[in-house]
Amino acid sequence: MGAVSTSPPSAARFLDACHGRPVDRAPAWMMRQAGRYLPEYREVRRRVSFIELCRDADLAAEVSLQPFRRFAPDGVIFFSDILVPVQAMGVKVEFDKNGPRLSHPIRTGDDVLRLRRFDPAADLRFTGEILKRLRGEVGDSAAIIGFAGAPWTLACYLVEGTSSKSFAPIKQMMGWGQRTLEGLLNLLADVIADVLSFQIASGAQVVQVFDTWAGELSREDYRRWALPAVTRAIAGIRRSAQPVILYVNGCSHLLEAMNESGADVLSVDWRLPLVEARQRLPQRPLQGNLDPGALLSPTRDVRRRVQAMLAETGGIAHVVNLGHGVLPQTPIESAEAFFEAAREASVAQAAEAPA
Amino acid sequence: MGAVSTSPPSAARFLDACHGRPVDRAPAWMMRQAGRYLPEYREVRRRVSFIELCRDADLAAEVSLQPFRRFAPDGVIFFSDILVPVQAMGVKVEFDKNGPRLSHPIRTGDDVLRLRRFDPAADLRFTGEILKRLRGEVGDSAAIIGFAGAPWTLACYLVEGTSSKSFAPIKQMMGWGQRTLEGLLNLLADVIADVLSFQIASGAQVVQVFDTWAGELSREDYRRWALPAVTRAIAGIRRSAQPVILYVNGCSHLLEAMNESGADVLSVDWRLPLVEARQRLPQRPLQGNLDPGALLSPTRDVRRRVQAMLAETGGIAHVVNLGHGVLPQTPIESAEAFFEAAREASVAQAAEAPA
Repeated sequence: MGAVSTSPPSAARFLDACHGRPVDRAPAWMMRQAGRYLPEYREVRRRVSFIELCRDADLAAEVSLQPFRRFAPDGVIFFSDILVPVQAMGVKVEFDKNGPRLSHPIRTGDDVLRLRRFDPAADLRFTGEILKRLRGEVGDSAAIIGFAGAPWTLACYLVEGTSSKSFAPIKQMMGWGQRTLEGLLNLLADVIADVLSFQIASGAQVVQVFDTWAGELSREDYRRWALPAVTRAIAGIRRSAQPVILYVNGCSHLLEAMNESGADVLSVDWRLPLVEARQRLPQRPLQGNLDPGALLSPTRDVRRRVQAMLAETGGIAHVVNLGHGVLPQTPIESAEAFFEAAREASVAQAAEAPA
Repeated sequence: MGAVSTSPPSAARFLDACHGRPVDRAPAWMMRQAGRYLPEYREVRRRVSFIELCRDADLAAEVSLQPFRRFAPDGVIFFSDILVPVQAMGVKVEFDKNGPRLSHPIRTGDDVLRLRRFDPAADLRFTGEILKRLRGEVGDSAAIIGFAGAPWTLACYLVEGTSSKSFAPIKQMMGWGQRTLEGLLNLLADVIADVLSFQIASGAQVVQVFDTWAGELSREDYRRWALPAVTRAIAGIRRSAQPVILYVNGCSHLLEAMNESGADVLSVDWRLPLVEARQRLPQRPLQGNLDPGALLSPTRDVRRRVQAMLAETGGIAHVVNLGHGVLPQTPIESAEAFFEAAREASVAQAAEAPA
């Protein structure tokens, strides 16, 4: 990791890029960087279930730090799941090998009224603990990243009861249960604002909102349903200068609408070339966007693709990332190549810049 | 169905729209219009399995005609599955409630060499039978539509062994097994060309190539893998004036590349507004693109959306369709509203046109 000594990881670099300020190189991290592709993570998971791991501050901090020790990313996301706040709302969630399963899908106004807005400082105290520990361990070497699911994406889970492909139940609600869905989205927006505010108060220096499934919606439906809800969530976050990153998978058609959400950084997937996103929104800091599937290629191809991605933005106002979470099948060497290429390309870039 | 008498369904209307010639109104059909949302289809399925239904020319013709009798679409697609030709290549495919499952995923060059190019006239004789019967029953009232999966989408199934979400195995092959994947895609392209040629010889007046999963690929990877294969397939079809429709789900970023495939009509999903597709490719006939989830709304909303969709193209060089297959949960009234609105809006359009 020769390049590391010349440009060690840095929280300031991450935050500067999010605000569009000059940087020596583009900061880098990977969505789901703490996860199943790491042997040391799988080792921890042999002892505890996924949910136990989320709620154990010691272990959750430990697995959050595993990729930091290996790859020296500029950001450390705390280990958790977007459904942890949903559980705190009173919903029973179980995780099996097919993904999450909710005990009682939300279908009526009464179902929504049974959900509770809670105090994260009381009911998600462990997430605050994890963030404090990370901040203590990492210092200024990397930005601590908080996160939550966006209202529409969480509503998908709540209405469907499971990871869905057809989105039929929520689209039925969009047609027939508009008051129910509005009530649900508004409640989720307020819960998410509370949760992210608490994460920031606990040490998160940047927060990412995952609206993973919003790319399923037409532009018209995104503006009608997902955008107002995520805008309300972002507006409700109590923060000073901590930037908000908004991620949508399959967002080619939504970029301009996402730009009205109040987010500081837009995180895009590999179907939207960064050079095109930059043309469409010249002033907006971007995050992304390598296909996680590209990390299943030889390391020389990974490097080439990271270099090509950085050439699209010049490393300016760009947080280097994947376009979706890292796949469990990813070889460690590929993740290493991803981070090394990000560091090297950016350093070269800075060296070439006019004095 | 008052509007039907003024503009009965017509094969010529369908073919004219595909060639960009003037029409009295835009033709309409729905992907998966023969399927689970129809009670008369479910009735047939109580007696036979999915695979048995595909291979029984009487029953398959019967279920193909069910939506024609109900809704009078301008196109009748024959009932089958994109994996039927894969079975004829020597692959064992089983269908359970989680979708198809292939006995032996393709991972090596030897696996590819075991697959056989077959003669559809011998091994898929029943598909020819179905098409002949449909042509006899329908006459000039609707275009008979043949179809096949595109090479990349079929390769996804063959390499993954099942309906996938991560596409990890095929992306690994894109990185490490390029010769294997090229061999597989070329073979599939030739098989698909044979299959579609046989369908046309048996009476199909238009054929659709489903590259459903190609929207997963970045533009670069689409051009490297999916596009050359589908181009080879289309070029190999023995046809006279029968148009080829190319469908990709999530195609916003691929439209210009799809336009190089040799397809006559591009079928787009609801994330790409038709007005934008028309701007980007002014000369290219389009098919689509209502969100199938919109049919889960009250019929007045279905009508409004069909009208809005037709306003985007003026009904010119436009085959009205959904952006993906109709959902099993779709109420019959919604499907009726879809077809009625398509007929009425287009007739109004034609009435307004300058003499």
